[in-house]
Amino acid sequence: MASFSEQDRSWMARAIQLAAQGRYTTHPNPRVGCVLVRDGQIVGEGFHVRAGEGHAEVNALRMAGDQAVGATAYVTLEPCSHHGKTPPCAEALVQARVARVVSAMVDPNPQVAGRGIKRLLKAGIEASSGLLEAEAKALNPGFIKRMEQGLPYVRVKTASSLDGRTAMQSGESQWITGAAARSDVQRLRAQSSVIVTGVDSILHDDSSLTVRENELQLDNAADIVQKQPLRVVLDSQLRMPLNAKILLQPGRTLIATVSQDAVKTGALIQSGAEVVQLAAEQNRVSIRALLEHLVTTEQCNELLVETGASLAGAFISAGVVDELVVYQAMTLMGSDARPMYRLPYSKMDEQIRLQLLDSRMLGDDLRLNLRPVYTEKN
Amino acid sequence: MASFSEQDRSWMARAIQLAAQGRYTTHPNPRVGCVLVRDGQIVGEGFHVRAGEGHAEVNALRMAGDQAVGATAYVTLEPCSHHGKTPPCAEALVQARVARVVSAMVDPNPQVAGRGIKRLLKAGIEASSGLLEAEAKALNPGFIKRMEQGLPYVRVKTASSLDGRTAMQSGESQWITGAAARSDVQRLRAQSSVIVTGVDSILHDDSSLTVRENELQLDNAADIVQKQPLRVVLDSQLRMPLNAKILLQPGRTLIATVSQDAVKTGALIQSGAEVVQLAAEQNRVSIRALLEHLVTTEQCNELLVETGASLAGAFISAGVVDELVVYQAMTLMGSDARPMYRLPYSKMDEQIRLQLLDSRMLGDDLRLNLRPVYTEKN
Repeated sequence: MASFSEQDRSWMARAIQLAAQGRYTTHPNPRVGCVLVRDGQIVGEGFHVRAGEGHAEVNALRMAGDQAVGATAYVTLEPCSHHGKTPPCAEALVQARVARVVSAMVDPNPQVAGRGIKRLLKAGIEASSGLLEAEAKALNPGFIKRMEQGLPYVRVKTASSLDGRTAMQSGESQWITGAAARSDVQRLRAQSSVIVTGVDSILHDDSSLTVRENELQLDNAADIVQKQPLRVVLDSQLRMPLNAKILLQPGRTLIATVSQDAVKTGALIQSGAEVVQLAAEQNRVSIRALLEHLVTTEQCNELLVETGASLAGAFISAGVVDELVVYQAMTLMGSDARPMYRLPYSKMDEQIRLQLLDSRMLGDDLRLNLRPVYTEKN
Repeated sequence: MASFSEQDRSWMARAIQLAAQGRYTTHPNPRVGCVLVRDGQIVGEGFHVRAGEGHAEVNALRMAGDQAVGATAYVTLEPCSHHGKTPPCAEALVQARVARVVSAMVDPNPQVAGRGIKRLLKAGIEASSGLLEAEAKALNPGFIKRMEQGLPYVRVKTASSLDGRTAMQSGESQWITGAAARSDVQRLRAQSSVIVTGVDSILHDDSSLTVRENELQLDNAADIVQKQPLRVVLDSQLRMPLNAKILLQPGRTLIATVSQDAVKTGALIQSGAEVVQLAAEQNRVSIRALLEHLVTTEQCNELLVETGASLAGAFISAGVVDELVVYQAMTLMGSDARPMYRLPYSKMDEQIRLQLLDSRMLGDDLRLNLRPVYTEKN
């Protein structure tokens, strides 16, 4: 077991800060940061910005130039050892003749985990991992889950009143939460590979589900919106209107269906949509099949579900939800209003316990991040 | 406008701490604390413990003895000027020859406000008020509201799931929240003059609504439970079972009804209850009439409503609720479970906005204290 100094921790914390700057742009790659330190001074630092461009280590090495010789590299993820779109970073570190490489975590891909470190050790470089591992893992919940389990990290986002309601019976719901919460939702979208909704949300609200530059409140907003998350509409019976607003937005819209209606499919494709037929479960698109498809075909890391009570409840019941993001407005909408999640429980022992990950105020609204604790019975 | 020094603020803060020690015992009197300071040293301090015993000033003067001469008295409430169960405190301060009296707030009773200070000034004592006034007011929301408006400070307490549910459809609800939250409810009961429930809660849960010594987690728990809050059951049609557990508990149980059934009334009185007939509103006990009765007859300061969705909703709709106390458990009970408050709204503009007063974790549960913002339409 490697031991690390307080100085090590401090440099790795800096590397994690750097990595986080890629939060909205690295998809489908992980967010990674790197700091090169020699004689107690930073001689180079960098982070991965977007797929196809330089990895964190390469960016840091470029900044350091000759000063990388004999330096310690702090990297939030084990340097890669394979040739992808860019040459392997482990190789680059060896060639730059760094003396030591500290990784926060090994590669989550079980196929290659440890290979980068092995390559470094073979070259006589001191290499270890595990420093601020939990913090580094929190940077890439989706990438890690995809590599480890072949599934995306699934968030279900809901805006509700204090009494657990999301819309009046009529569907009227604008606006439950305030501007700060809505801006936060924009950033949640921007960090997601895919946004999923149900066709009922489209039929009812004609939602766009886009990331909007002026609402992000981020310096690199203009860059971020260049790459919109994939929008997926669950539409078992192809009820999607051909003139839906979502089809006119920048970026792609994928309709996931179990219908084999070639005419409707053709018309939707004509209108700008993509259509995929997936396995059915009780005449609806199988949620598991959808998630597997989005991992295989779209390299989906983080998936955001923004939808009504029925589909949100179906995701929760399917046992695939990693995190509920609840924007709770300090208001009472009353007992006739619509529920948060359609979950037909009749006994206390059916309830799903939640682990509170975070709570904070956003303007006048309370944001709660919660993890469903699935047990045998769920 | 009097001006106060940092030292003044610090002594008054101490007086407020002292006053808070009477939180569970002073009913129907206000919680009051007093600190006597001479030459930068505390020479006496005290608080009001219970009605009939010494007021805060008298307790502090007793401790100070001769050292009170020339001292400054910090009192959280203007010293009384009238003969009640004990002689007037303004008089006692004059006779002790203190040099200066600082009050946090004037007496909230408009009939006597300012008289105590006037008495002090007349005796040549420097007297002022308004130091840490908001903090002092927070000690006595019920006493102040009763004095100013002839109504109690009404809290509605609810334990709910994150999705806004309080029980399964069957009524099953034990336990939604954890031990820390339930202990907090015990303290909430203990600081209340009156606890109100509906007969349906009795019929369904056979609740006792007592303050229990072993659950209070307070040093003076044994003292506190000697004086149980008055329990009030709203029971328009006198459906209360004669063998209800609540009737066997220490302290009084009052049944508020609109029924004139002398036989049932007699049987209930025989079983240990008190019965009062109040004005009806749509065949039910008028909530306003109830509150006025409890102020007039019981000197009710703080009133705690512990009941199901219908009666809680009726209190909210009546526009009389000062504070919702919500113990939110991190769990999902599902969309078929019972709502928090029965409020039959159909439009967003009917919603009741809430002002968040406080939020904190109690064990795994989140406690939210909220104030309904009643507007014209409500």
